[in-house]
Amino acid sequence: MLTRILFFALCVVFLAAPAFGEPKVSSDTAECLACHANSTPGVVADWQRSRHAQVTPDEALKKPALGRRISVTKAPDKLNATVVGCAECHVSNSKKHKDAFDHNGAQVHVVVTPEDCAVCHPTEMNQYGKNLMSHAHINLARNPLYQDLVKSINGVPTFKDMKVSVEAPDAETNAESCYHCHGTVIEVTGTVTRQTKDGDMEFPVLSGWPNQGVGRINPDGSLGSCTSCHARHQFSITMARKPYTCSQCHKGPDVPAYAVYQVSKHGNLFSSVGSEWNMSAVPWTVGKDFTAPTCAACHVSLLTNASQETIVERTHQMNDRNSWRLVGLGYAHAHPKSPDTSIIRNKAGLSLPTELTGEPAGTYLISPAEQFARLRVMKKVCNSCHSRGWVDKHFDRLDNTVDKTNKSTLAATQILLTAWDRGAAKGPAQGDSMFNEAIEKKWVEQWMFYANSTRFASAMAGADYGVFQRGRWDMAKDIEEMVDWLKFKLNDKSNHETLDKQTGTK
Amino acid sequence: MLTRILFFALCVVFLAAPAFGEPKVSSDTAECLACHANSTPGVVADWQRSRHAQVTPDEALKKPALGRRISVTKAPDKLNATVVGCAECHVSNSKKHKDAFDHNGAQVHVVVTPEDCAVCHPTEMNQYGKNLMSHAHINLARNPLYQDLVKSINGVPTFKDMKVSVEAPDAETNAESCYHCHGTVIEVTGTVTRQTKDGDMEFPVLSGWPNQGVGRINPDGSLGSCTSCHARHQFSITMARKPYTCSQCHKGPDVPAYAVYQVSKHGNLFSSVGSEWNMSAVPWTVGKDFTAPTCAACHVSLLTNASQETIVERTHQMNDRNSWRLVGLGYAHAHPKSPDTSIIRNKAGLSLPTELTGEPAGTYLISPAEQFARLRVMKKVCNSCHSRGWVDKHFDRLDNTVDKTNKSTLAATQILLTAWDRGAAKGPAQGDSMFNEAIEKKWVEQWMFYANSTRFASAMAGADYGVFQRGRWDMAKDIEEMVDWLKFKLNDKSNHETLDKQTGTK
Amino acid sequence: MLTRILFFALCVVFLAAPAFGEPKVSSDTAECLACHANSTPGVVADWQRSRHAQVTPDEALKKPALGRRISVTKAPDKLNATVVGCAECHVSNSKKHKDAFDHNGAQVHVVVTPEDCAVCHPTEMNQYGKNLMSHAHINLARNPLYQDLVKSINGVPTFKDMKVSVEAPDAETNAESCYHCHGTVIEVTGTVTRQTKDGDMEFPVLSGWPNQGVGRINPDGSLGSCTSCHARHQFSITMARKPYTCSQCHKGPDVPAYAVYQVSKHGNLFSSVGSEWNMSAVPWTVGKDFTAPTCAACHVSLLTNASQETIVERTHQMNDRNSWRLVGLGYAHAHPKSPDTSIIRNKAGLSLPTELTGEPAGTYLISPAEQFARLRVMKKVCNSCHSRGWVDKHFDRLDNTVDKTNKSTLAATQILLTAWDRGAAKGPAQGDSMFNEAIEKKWVEQWMFYANSTRFASAMAGADYGVFQRGRWDMAKDIEEMVDWLKFKLNDKSNHETLDKQTGTK
Repeated sequence: MLTRILFFALCVVFLAAPAFGEPKVSSDTAECLACHANSTPGVVADWQRSRHAQVTPDEALKKPALGRRISVTKAPDKLNATVVGCAECHVSNSKKHKDAFDHNGAQVHVVVTPEDCAVCHPTEMNQYGKNLMSHAHINLARNPLYQDLVKSINGVPTFKDMKVSVEAPDAETNAESCYHCHGTVIEVTGTVTRQTKDGDMEFPVLSGWPNQGVGRINPDGSLGSCTSCHARHQFSITMARKPYTCSQCHKGPDVPAYAVYQVSKHGNLFSSVGSEWNMSAVPWTVGKDFTAPTCAACHVSLLTNASQETIVERTHQMNDRNSWRLVGLGYAHAHPKSPDTSIIRNKAGLSLPTELTGEPAGTYLISPAEQFARLRVMKKVCNSCHSRGWVDKHFDRLDNTVDKTNKSTLAATQILLTAWDRGAAKGPAQGDSMFNEAIEKKWVEQWMFYANSTRFASAMAGADYGVFQRGRWDMAKDIEEMVDWLKFKLNDKSNHETLDKQTGTK
Repeated sequence: MLTRILFFALCVVFLAAPAFGEPKVSSDTAECLACHANSTPGVVADWQRSRHAQVTPDEALKKPALGRRISVTKAPDKLNATVVGCAECHVSNSKKHKDAFDHNGAQVHVVVTPEDCAVCHPTEMNQYGKNLMSHAHINLARNPLYQDLVKSINGVPTFKDMKVSVEAPDAETNAESCYHCHGTVIEVTGTVTRQTKDGDMEFPVLSGWPNQGVGRINPDGSLGSCTSCHARHQFSITMARKPYTCSQCHKGPDVPAYAVYQVSKHGNLFSSVGSEWNMSAVPWTVGKDFTAPTCAACHVSLLTNASQETIVERTHQMNDRNSWRLVGLGYAHAHPKSPDTSIIRNKAGLSLPTELTGEPAGTYLISPAEQFARLRVMKKVCNSCHSRGWVDKHFDRLDNTVDKTNKSTLAATQILLTAWDRGAAKGPAQGDSMFNEAIEKKWVEQWMFYANSTRFASAMAGADYGVFQRGRWDMAKDIEEMVDWLKFKLNDKSNHETLDKQTGTK
Repeated sequence: MLTRILFFALCVVFLAAPAFGEPKVSSDTAECLACHANSTPGVVADWQRSRHAQVTPDEALKKPALGRRISVTKAPDKLNATVVGCAECHVSNSKKHKDAFDHNGAQVHVVVTPEDCAVCHPTEMNQYGKNLMSHAHINLARNPLYQDLVKSINGVPTFKDMKVSVEAPDAETNAESCYHCHGTVIEVTGTVTRQTKDGDMEFPVLSGWPNQGVGRINPDGSLGSCTSCHARHQFSITMARKPYTCSQCHKGPDVPAYAVYQVSKHGNLFSSVGSEWNMSAVPWTVGKDFTAPTCAACHVSLLTNASQETIVERTHQMNDRNSWRLVGLGYAHAHPKSPDTSIIRNKAGLSLPTELTGEPAGTYLISPAEQFARLRVMKKVCNSCHSRGWVDKHFDRLDNTVDKTNKSTLAATQILLTAWDRGAAKGPAQGDSMFNEAIEKKWVEQWMFYANSTRFASAMAGADYGVFQRGRWDMAKDIEEMVDWLKFKLNDKSNHETLDKQTGTK
C-alpha cells in the first residue's frame, strides 16, 4: 500500500510540475494568496490545478490558432505577462462592478461575470449572448404566463373551506428552484461586518446569492455566468466537455437530455470507454481524441479530423446546430430569432412561440432555410462517424417525431379547451390561471414532460425515454386520465344540477 | 500542463503500438481505408483501437482454448492471415446479402449481421439464436396482443366529441421506440444517388434503418445485431462487460435491471472500485480480475478461478442461468422453451405465457427440473464469493417474491375483470382493446412496472426498487386507485341510469 | 494489444507488492485460507487487496495520530503482530456470538459485527451507536405506526366483493425490502448439513440472512453492520468515501440524497474530475486530495487543510453536523436526542417527532442551540472553499425551505383530516389505518417523496429535485389531486344519499 501511495505521489508530482517554468503570479494575486491559501484553501488548491494558474496570455497566444483557448489576439498590456490569478479576475474590471468593495486596499468584486472573462475570451461571450441561455432569467421573469407557472409551482398552499389558495412564492424559494438554473438578479443590498482572523472586515450583502445560473443578471449589467459550465476555480475544459456538467440543469423530466444520452449508444461509449479519451485536447480530433460524442461535441466544441481540418467551428450559441427547439412550450418549434423570448407575442397576444393550438408565431422564429442550415452543420458532426444514409434517416425520424408529438399535445390541449369551455375548469377566459387545476397540471405534463422526453429520445436515440420512461406510454395514459377527469367533473356537475332541479335546492 | 500532455501522448503511443508487428491489412481493406480514413475518420480511428485491427484469426488461434475470443477452430483460408478489417466484414459474405451493392468495384453490404460474425464466432451466434433476444422483433411483431399494446402506446391520438381515437402508429415511430431495442426489419426499398468527393455514387435505401436492435431481421435473413452489445467498430469486450451496455435497453420502468444493479452492493463495488479491475481478460478470473459481478459476469461470461478452472462456461443464450423469467406478462413464469414466443397459446387462445389469471401455459415453458438446473449454474457464480447459506437464502427470497408479486398482479387483474364484467370498461369480450382505457393502463403498470421492478430488486438486492422506487409502494397505491376508478365509474353510471329513469331522457 | 496487457500486468504487480514486507498472517488465518482460497476464491482475493491483509495493528499504530485508521491505542496482545485475516474477525470474539459453530476445530461465527470491529475501532463503534442509523431496525420495528405503514406497502392484496384486503407481509418480504437497509434480526434457527469437498459439514441456519442493513440486530446483541458502508472484504476507505456507497439506501424517492448530489455542482465535480482525486488519504486534505465534497466529506470524514490543521473531526454519528432532520415524518424537524426514536410520544400519543399538524415533540428533540452548534461544524467544511457570505445565505435558504415545505405538508394534512372528518376516508379515529386509502397514499407522498426531495435539493443545491423531479411541482399537483379526490368522494356520497332518499332504496 505504501508503494501504491508513493506511485500515486510520484504521478502527482510529475503531472503537477509547471509547464512553462515557475508560474508568473502578479504581485496583486500574490497578496490575495497570502491570506486565502489559509482562509479558503480549497479555492486556492483548485485554482492551482487550473490552466489559468500556469499559462500567461502571452504564452497562450504562442499556440497555433486552432489550438488556442483564448479568442483575443492580444491581451491587455497589464495582464499579458502574468498567469490569470485572483486579482486578474476579481479586481481588474472592478470599475464596472457595483459589487466592488474595498478589501485590504483593493477594489474587489465577488461576482465574476462574462464581461470579466471576455477580457481574454470575447468571442465566447459574444456567441453566448446570442444563446437563449444568456437570457434564461429574463425569458422567465418577464413573461407573465411563465410567472404564473412559477407561482403555481413554488407558491405556498393553504387549505380552507374546501379550497386551496396559493400564496406567491418568496424570492429565496424562487432563487433555489427555477432561478437556480435560469439565474438570479445579483444586487448589492447592504453591507455586513464580519470577524476574521485579521480583524473586523466589511463585505457587501448580495441579493440572489449564491447563484451560478446561465442567465444571471450581474452587478456589472452583463448576463450569464461562465461558471455554470466552467466550474470555479479549475475552469477545466475536461469538465465542460463531460455530460455531467450539462446534467446539472438538463436531466429532469422537463429537459431529460442527459438522461437520454446516458442510455444512448453514445452515452454507453462515453461511460464504458470514455476514460481512455483525451478530454482536454484543443482542437478536439474525432476518432483520435474521442470515439463518441458528448453533449459538447455535438453542440459546442471545435472539432477537427486527423488532418487537422475543421469539421465544425466552436460555438457558444448552443442552439446554432439545432433544427428544432425540442423543449416545447407546449409545441416543438423552430428556434426563436432573438435570445430574448419575452418579446414574442402569438396571435392570441400571449408570450408563447406558438398558439395554444400549435401554429408557430411565425415572424419571431427562424425560417425553414435557417433550420436546414443549422441541421447541415450538425450533420457534419454525425458524418464523421456515420454514413449519410444513417444520418439522414435519423433526422427524418426526428422531424416525424416533432410532428407526431405536437399532435399529441394538440389532443391534450383540445381536452383542456373543452374543460374550460364547458365549465369543468377555469382558464384565462374565466380570469383564472392556466396552471392551477389538476387537469391543467396534467396538460402541462403532456408537453413539458412526456412530449419533450419523447423528442429528446428521438434526437439522441435513447429509446426508453420515448416509450415507458416518461415517453409515449405516459402521453397516452395522460390523455385518458384527462378525459376521465373531464367526464367525472361534467357528470358531477350535471348530477348536481339535475339534483338541484329535482330537489329544488336552487 | 505541457508535461501532462506529453505524458498522455507517450502513454497513447505506447499503448497503441501494434501487438504483433505491423498489422496485416488485406489489400481489399486497404482500398476501403484509403477513402474512409477521410470520409468517416471516426469509424477508422475507432476500428484501429480494436482487437480486430491488430490480430489475425491465425494469431488468435495460437492462444490456449480458454483464452480465445473466437470459437472457430480454423478460419477460412482467405481470411486467416490478415486482420479483420472493412472488407472482411462488409464484403466477404456479400452473396447472401440483399443489401449488397457495387461500390467502387466491390460488392459491399452496409449491414453486418450475426452470420457475418459467425465466420469466426459460430458458437456465439448459435447460442444467441436460442436466446429470446434474437427473436425480440418477431415476438413483438407477430403477437396480435402486443401489437395492440404497441398501438395503444405509439398511436397518434385525436380528441373529438368527448372521445379519444388513436390512429395506428407509423413505421418510423415504431422504429425509434419499441423496435429500437427489439430490432427492425431491414430491407432494400430503392437506391439513392449522392454527391461525394469522388463524384456521384449510388447507395441502397434501407427500411428500418438505422437500427441495432437485438432481434433485427437482416437483409441476409439472419436475426439480431451483434453491435447491440459489441459496439462498432471497436467491438470492445470491456464495453460489453460493463453494465452501461445492458442499460441501453434494460434501465426503464419496464425492465429496470441496470437501475437496480446500480444501487446494489455489486453495483456500488463496480462504480467505486471497478476502475481497478481488468475488464478485458479472457478467461475472466473471479477475485483476480474483478471483485464484484457486472451483468455479463452473471449472465454471459466464461469465469474461472485463480487455478484457471472453469466456474461457468461462456454463453450467449442469456437466460440459461435464470430460474425465472422475471419480466412478467403479466406474471413471472418459467422461461419459454422456444425463443420464438409468438407460437405460445394459453388456454384462452392468447399468445401469453400464462392465463390472465396467472396459471402458466405449461407445455410451452421449461420444466421445474430445468429451472433448477439453470439456477444451479447461476449459484456457481455466486458461490465463488458467497457461502452457500447466503446464496440459497437469497434465491429462496426471490422465489417468495415471484409468488407474492404474482398475487398482487392477480388482485389487479381481478379488479380489471370486474370492470369489464360490470361495464365500467370495455375489454376483449366487448370487442375492445385491453390497453386503451385509464384503468387498463393502471393494470399494465401494475405488472409491467411495479411487479417487474420488485422482482428485479429481489433478484439483485437493490431494495429501493422493491419499495418506493416503483416497487411495492406503487403496487399498493395502484390497486387502491384502480378500485377508486372502478367505483367512480360504476356510481357515475348508476347515477346516470337512475337520473335517466327519473327524468325520462331515455 | 499484448503490450497493453503487459503494461497493465506490470502495473498490477507493482501496485500489489506488499507494503511492509511479507504479510504476517496468523496460523489460524492461514488454516482458513488453505481451503477458502479454493472454495470462495473471490472472498480471499478481495481480502488480499485490503489494508487488513497487509498491515498489522502494531504497524498501524506507528503512524502519526491524524493518519491512523484505528482508534485503539494498543491492540490486544494476541492480535497486534499479525495482519487482520479471517480468524481475527470470524473467530477471536466467538464467545459472545450465538452464531458461533464448530468448523474444523475452530469456533467460527459467520456474522461479523460492530463489536468485533471495535477491537481495533472502538471510537467508530461508539459514535455509530449514537447515530440514528444504528437503531434503524428498532425504530421501524418498535413503532406501531410505522409497522402499519410497512404492512400497507408490503402486504399481499386480494380483491373480493369490491373490497381490497391486505394480508400481513411475511418475514422474507420485509427482509428484502424495508429491512434490507434498516437491518434484520439475525438469529440461529437451526443447523443444516451440507456436502462439501471435505465431506459433510454442519452449518448454522440464520434468520434474517443475508443482510447488511445499518441497524441489524446481531447474534452478539450489537446493533448495525459496518459492511453496510465498508464492503467486505476489501473494507476500502475509497469506497466508503464515494457517493455510490450512500446511494445504496439514499437514492430513492423517499431519501434522494445521492440523486440530488449527482446533479449538484459538487456531484458534477466528483463525476467529472474525481478520478484525479486521492480518495484514500488519511487525513483527507481539502484542495490537495479532493476539490469537491462527497457525502463522506460533509458528514463523516476527518478533514484537514494543507498545513495539516484539523478542519473537522471524523465522526460516525452522521447527523452531528446537521441542523435539521430533513427526512420529515411528515415534517422536517430538529434531530431526536436519542437514536432510539421508538421512545418518542407526541401529544397525541403517537410515536412521531411532531404532531400531525407539525408542532415538534419538543422534549424529545435537540434544542435550537444544539442545532446551531451542529450547523457551525458543517459550515467549517463549506468555508474551506466558500466565502462566509455564500455559505450563510445558502443555509438561510435551507431554513426557509424547511419552513415552506412544512407548510405544504400542513395543507395536505388538513385535506386528509377533512376527508376523515367528513367520512370520505377512514383514519385512526375510525379505527382504520392511516396509510391504506388512495388519498392517504397521496398524503404520504406529499411529505415522504416531494417535501423530502425539495429539502434535499435545497440542502445540496440540486435544483431539479426541488422543482420538476418530485419537488414543488409534485407537491402542488398532489394537493390539487387530493382535493379533487375528496370532492368526488363527497359528491359521490351525497349523490347516493340523495338518490337513496328519492328512490327509497334505503
